[in-house]
Amino acid sequence: MTTLAVDCMGGDHGPRVTLAACRSFLDREPEARLILVGVPDALKGFSHPRATVVPATEVVAMDDPVEVALRRKKDSSMRVAIQQVKDGAAQAAVSAGNTGALMALARYLLKTVDGIDRPAIAYPMPNARGGATTVLDLGANVDCTEQHLLQFAVMGSALVSALKGVESPTVGLLNIGEEVIKGSEVIKKAGELLRSAAAAGDLNFHGNVEGNDIFKGTTDIVVCDGFVGNIALKTSEGLASMIGGFLKEEFSRSIFTRLAALAAYPVLSAFRRRVDHRRYNGAALLGLRGLVFKSHGSADAFAFEQALARAYDAARNNLLDRVQARIAHARPLLESGADTGGAVAVAP
Amino acid sequence: MTTLAVDCMGGDHGPRVTLAACRSFLDREPEARLILVGVPDALKGFSHPRATVVPATEVVAMDDPVEVALRRKKDSSMRVAIQQVKDGAAQAAVSAGNTGALMALARYLLKTVDGIDRPAIAYPMPNARGGATTVLDLGANVDCTEQHLLQFAVMGSALVSALKGVESPTVGLLNIGEEVIKGSEVIKKAGELLRSAAAAGDLNFHGNVEGNDIFKGTTDIVVCDGFVGNIALKTSEGLASMIGGFLKEEFSRSIFTRLAALAAYPVLSAFRRRVDHRRYNGAALLGLRGLVFKSHGSADAFAFEQALARAYDAARNNLLDRVQARIAHARPLLESGADTGGAVAVAP
Repeated sequence: MTTLAVDCMGGDHGPRVTLAACRSFLDREPEARLILVGVPDALKGFSHPRATVVPATEVVAMDDPVEVALRRKKDSSMRVAIQQVKDGAAQAAVSAGNTGALMALARYLLKTVDGIDRPAIAYPMPNARGGATTVLDLGANVDCTEQHLLQFAVMGSALVSALKGVESPTVGLLNIGEEVIKGSEVIKKAGELLRSAAAAGDLNFHGNVEGNDIFKGTTDIVVCDGFVGNIALKTSEGLASMIGGFLKEEFSRSIFTRLAALAAYPVLSAFRRRVDHRRYNGAALLGLRGLVFKSHGSADAFAFEQALARAYDAARNNLLDRVQARIAHARPLLESGADTGGAVAVAP
Repeated sequence: MTTLAVDCMGGDHGPRVTLAACRSFLDREPEARLILVGVPDALKGFSHPRATVVPATEVVAMDDPVEVALRRKKDSSMRVAIQQVKDGAAQAAVSAGNTGALMALARYLLKTVDGIDRPAIAYPMPNARGGATTVLDLGANVDCTEQHLLQFAVMGSALVSALKGVESPTVGLLNIGEEVIKGSEVIKKAGELLRSAAAAGDLNFHGNVEGNDIFKGTTDIVVCDGFVGNIALKTSEGLASMIGGFLKEEFSRSIFTRLAALAAYPVLSAFRRRVDHRRYNGAALLGLRGLVFKSHGSADAFAFEQALARAYDAARNNLLDRVQARIAHARPLLESGADTGGAVAVAP
């Protein structure tokens, strides 16, 4: 039986959303157990034979600085949920809370695995092939070296391989052109490291990809630093919301367009389902000695349940062991790269 | 009378598209003159009382390296068109050719204005307010300093102020959060410089913006390095194309959905017009001693005509003088920043 620890207080809506999602998740997954972490008063309405409550007296606010989450609120629901993973009581933790705090607490409590300097956040973005492209890092690792990008590629491959059962998922390096001579020095060196990793059989490296390849689904995984990843994600959210707004405006312009909307209703609903980002909720924090999943802060119950499902799949499929095995296999490369990081030659 | 020099051979479609756009543009603008630059054979079908042909024997291919455009093809249509601006025969040049070659040739022939290290490409992206957000740089200035970002802000402000008649357009610095402590060291220093510029009255600096603010239209201008700008643009193109594809698929799924599409046709057309990126074609190369506009390579005649219109507006509204005046006004700041670039304090 697989157990998830849920930070029931996190996110914009707290227990109202997280508890509804937990109930629906438990109904859907007869083999799952949940540890609900939160302020007892807020959870008292909930009871289920496969759920237990672990109390926490504090809550990390969405705008709390990392320091407050780390040093002051030592009995926060977020922290206690991660502690369940550390103690072995749960195989994964899920939170919709403050990303920075979650990253910092997870790193502090669980530590990174050998060979990984920084945890990364891997975010699934829907693509035109009907699947999702896993983009990392979105965890705001702002200044990344070529080594970090290689580590992201190794971790992303392990994640996709565990979640989708693909043996050797393809990896693209996000760049401003497909040619190896494009991009900053760090990107060029990362390309070189990734090609070596591919030659050694540690990765299925496709080469450089561009921004549009994320949504085309050119590769299973797209690797970038956290700054670029954040801009790509937020820009996409902004565009999707603008397009959705335009469509709505056009269909509600007059009585005639409203009638057209009625006629087109089944089509528009099917379209909306396809572009519904809630289906892709649940980003993995990778590189830690324990599984932690991040839900979007504004998630509703449907979206939060997707994050629970994703964490559950990862835990059942031994994501942690797989990531560690992949990293162990790539260790010689990770280490040789680290030693000669500054001196890696760029292919002409 | 304002004259534009048109590289008729550039872009994916060459004269078939550029000449059609030129004819329509001349019909629409009775005060405009055009210098059509290209291989005489390709242009011989065209004649108009306000158009003259300047021959060029070579064409820069879309995949020609910059070196070929600069050193080998010395009689290319792209180069000859820019030369018209340098010689004072035209007030702006327009090309749909290879961006790297256009940047390099423009910089080599026209030179940058005093106070500007690198030209930048400013791209208008549609926003939810019904206007466009001007994003720069998209010219692949990959490693930018805080000084470059300040220069982009000054140039972008001059552009928007000239094209839209806004005295003091707002500038946002693209970042991964609104707080001043977010981002890389370069971004934090750029924020500090931009705040100083705002305090000195040289800029209307709004502060940090995030990716979604581009499409929200939070500020008139968004400043970023060329790597991040390229990723944001290409990611948006990829998403827009995926969403368009989904919508089309859903409406052509069966006879019923096709009927729904018929009913919704006027609405869908209005929607398509609103998100039609062709309307926003025409990016300015800024910071040069002459005006050059870049059209998308895949532009059709409608889109190429938008680029001509944009170049024409810039030339008529003295964009060049305005940019230079703004830069001259900001010179003390640009220079003080340059001297103490490494030592600028970051506000706590």
